[in-house]
Amino acid sequence: MLEELKKQVYEANMLLPAYKLITFTWGNVSGIDREKNLFVIKPSGVEYDELKPEDMVVVDLEGNVVEGDYNPSSDTATHLEIYKAFPKVMGVVHTHSSYATSWAQAGRAIPCYGTTHADYFYGEIPCLRCLNADEIKDAYEENTGHLIVNEFNRMNIDPIATPAVLCKNHGVFAWGKDAIEAVHSAVVVEEVAKMAYRTELINKDVKPAPQELQDKHYFRKHGANAYYGQTKK
Amino acid sequence: MLEELKKQVYEANMLLPAYKLITFTWGNVSGIDREKNLFVIKPSGVEYDELKPEDMVVVDLEGNVVEGDYNPSSDTATHLEIYKAFPKVMGVVHTHSSYATSWAQAGRAIPCYGTTHADYFYGEIPCLRCLNADEIKDAYEENTGHLIVNEFNRMNIDPIATPAVLCKNHGVFAWGKDAIEAVHSAVVVEEVAKMAYRTELINKDVKPAPQELQDKHYFRKHGANAYYGQTKK
Amino acid sequence: MLEELKKQVYEANMLLPAYKLITFTWGNVSGIDREKNLFVIKPSGVEYDELKPEDMVVVDLEGNVVEGDYNPSSDTATHLEIYKAFPKVMGVVHTHSSYATSWAQAGRAIPCYGTTHADYFYGEIPCLRCLNADEIKDAYEENTGHLIVNEFNRMNIDPIATPAVLCKNHGVFAWGKDAIEAVHSAVVVEEVAKMAYRTELINKDVKPAPQELQDKHYFRKHGANAYYGQTKK
Amino acid sequence: MLEELKKQVYEANMLLPAYKLITFTWGNVSGIDREKNLFVIKPSGVEYDELKPEDMVVVDLEGNVVEGDYNPSSDTATHLEIYKAFPKVMGVVHTHSSYATSWAQAGRAIPCYGTTHADYFYGEIPCLRCLNADEIKDAYEENTGHLIVNEFNRMNIDPIATPAVLCKNHGVFAWGKDAIEAVHSAVVVEEVAKMAYRTELINKDVKPAPQELQDKHYFRKHGANAYYGQTKK
Repeated sequence: MLEELKKQVYEANMLLPAYKLITFTWGNVSGIDREKNLFVIKPSGVEYDELKPEDMVVVDLEGNVVEGDYNPSSDTATHLEIYKAFPKVMGVVHTHSSYATSWAQAGRAIPCYGTTHADYFYGEIPCLRCLNADEIKDAYEENTGHLIVNEFNRMNIDPIATPAVLCKNHGVFAWGKDAIEAVHSAVVVEEVAKMAYRTELINKDVKPAPQELQDKHYFRKHGANAYYGQTKK
Repeated sequence: MLEELKKQVYEANMLLPAYKLITFTWGNVSGIDREKNLFVIKPSGVEYDELKPEDMVVVDLEGNVVEGDYNPSSDTATHLEIYKAFPKVMGVVHTHSSYATSWAQAGRAIPCYGTTHADYFYGEIPCLRCLNADEIKDAYEENTGHLIVNEFNRMNIDPIATPAVLCKNHGVFAWGKDAIEAVHSAVVVEEVAKMAYRTELINKDVKPAPQELQDKHYFRKHGANAYYGQTKK
Repeated sequence: MLEELKKQVYEANMLLPAYKLITFTWGNVSGIDREKNLFVIKPSGVEYDELKPEDMVVVDLEGNVVEGDYNPSSDTATHLEIYKAFPKVMGVVHTHSSYATSWAQAGRAIPCYGTTHADYFYGEIPCLRCLNADEIKDAYEENTGHLIVNEFNRMNIDPIATPAVLCKNHGVFAWGKDAIEAVHSAVVVEEVAKMAYRTELINKDVKPAPQELQDKHYFRKHGANAYYGQTKK
Repeated sequence: MLEELKKQVYEANMLLPAYKLITFTWGNVSGIDREKNLFVIKPSGVEYDELKPEDMVVVDLEGNVVEGDYNPSSDTATHLEIYKAFPKVMGVVHTHSSYATSWAQAGRAIPCYGTTHADYFYGEIPCLRCLNADEIKDAYEENTGHLIVNEFNRMNIDPIATPAVLCKNHGVFAWGKDAIEAVHSAVVVEEVAKMAYRTELINKDVKPAPQELQDKHYFRKHGANAYYGQTKK
């Protein structure tokens, strides 16, 4: 069942240690089949060097396990809410990558200080408030997903143009048009988090990059007039 | 004698360079057999790439070497005091890992700024006072152990819920339910030390994570109602 | 066509991941044949582990692609302006290397704090202003090149003695007497950016190295009286 | 001639990239034969991956090349002065290792903040003044050696108990009882430089470790009453 997708989601999960985004099992990636309305996700707490494609767990959009020998990731309910609310998102990743999580712990959005950021993210990478006691007590992981969705809607952020978010005192959720691209988003978040951290230590009065420069770089890679890379032939 | 335990303690010691927790021989791991009241520890000052399982030294709970061709680690007396006072601890590790030792040198406990920390440690990772001149002069390593035990008792900290401590101007002791888990505790200490350091540089007014979030993450992985990972079948 | 140069430019491009100067495809190297007035550059957005020498694109000094199956790097027009204005430059590289880009994002030149810097760069590594809205809107990459050339001329900087520049809110351009040396310049920029960052955190009142020390180190490696390295026999 | 020593000095040089103490050719190691009054040193500017034991250059204590196809390191005269003035020193190394050089650029001695430092160095690692214009102009490398020796004498520092120094705006010289131990000193300098840097960022009011703790750790590894490691049998 969903063998191709399981293989891709497995490979995307294995990119997390390859890109040094995780320690131990502190991360998980999923990918969705939008026709079948099923998504595939890493099992909870299984070591990366023991993981196999067939260990991936298949979950439906009500959160039921449809296939799999293991419990799905404890963050499954968060992935689910993102898939339900953002129909163009086809892959989701959660990490505690070191620099990005430091920004999340600091409770600050990552400002767009340069073109590295603007090439991938339109505007700052938001940092949400922490969940309150009621939201944490029951359905914590589902409420994390609700908060992401509600805050993106409230702030009128396009999740395709800003494919990541920091959860305060917690870590990163990132996404993309498939599981591999979701991991790429998470790599970029970590890189820009690292550079933004150092940028502020080099110049405490630094300002975000001019909007016209942000626009130039974002739109030379995305949208109808993009000219970066190779034309699909 | 204790061949299985020696093998595990050897493997746990070899994880120290694998996780980049040590330079040269700046660390040591031990594991205990609670039935025989004997523990096994790395020999002092032997290079990691020359170490073999049979080089591990067997020590009793009076500190006598029971078996082994080498002198045990110079920190043996500290391991001993931890084993005597904390009966659930089955493995102990000492490192000078870089970020955690920086906090120890700074004389500060590591605050719980996020869920990465709360997943493993209940509350901050304490930093003890430095030993005084009398405590240093004689039986320095034993007194280091006494201080750890006395301070945990005085502060009413459960050593299972807080499986590590910083010794001021010195380094880290960490522990667990066996030698391997002790090393895992030391890895987590280093990771949270690194993120806490950066967190404070990103936001100098940062506060610890809300208690309810710390509780949620700690108890979803530990205790009777844990739901992270796979159910033991 | 230009097989030797393509091979060298390919190898210089492959040094970017080897020296950890790039993530994904965030960089490009070119090299020029000054007799034929043609330069060879990495194709745009092609993954490094799929890149082959024959994928390199040949471009003339009007910016026309003369040979190649791919689009050239989106930064080609910047390389072109550097080649046209600085006749001794034979190789050019663009990176978003982490520390140097942090200085660029901070909008600050890298001061010469020591001999590591002075061995390769005469004086600080300048950080240019950001392009204005008009310059960004059309011919952005060409205008980046114009700005580099105009500012070096205005500040009377010899591009051979200062073979790199920071573009504000963007990244690094570096160069040299061939594509390999251009990459070496970029490695040095990253190393001195890293040390200058830490130097200022260790001593916020630090001053640049004395001019006579800068001169000594620069001229013991460069120019008529150099005595570092081996005499060409 | 001196084949054994050449082999050891070669191996010590190859430890510099292995321990990530250098970029390109930014370092050199030498070792001395005290009976023959000859020392062996890396050739100047030769790439590490092309270096062979037989490339090492033999120099006498007047600075004359006695054997070798290459020019000796441009820092040879500094090594020479150290050997002449400190008779127990048998190996010398020069690096621009990143953290230590940042302290040198900042013009600050590295305080002894903990036992990692005290295990190897008795007291702070001094940072000398920069050479003045006259000292730089002629015989710069020799004058660097004179300054090291004169300042150690003036400050009454035992070079065996403090086997390294920072040269302001420049880098590190370290030494030991042979070329390998000299490199080990340089590794420790880099590690303690890194931790001291972070220590001060974690606590800007930090004080050095108590003298009695420094003494305990230094003397448990060095001198007549040392008990760290294995007894020589």
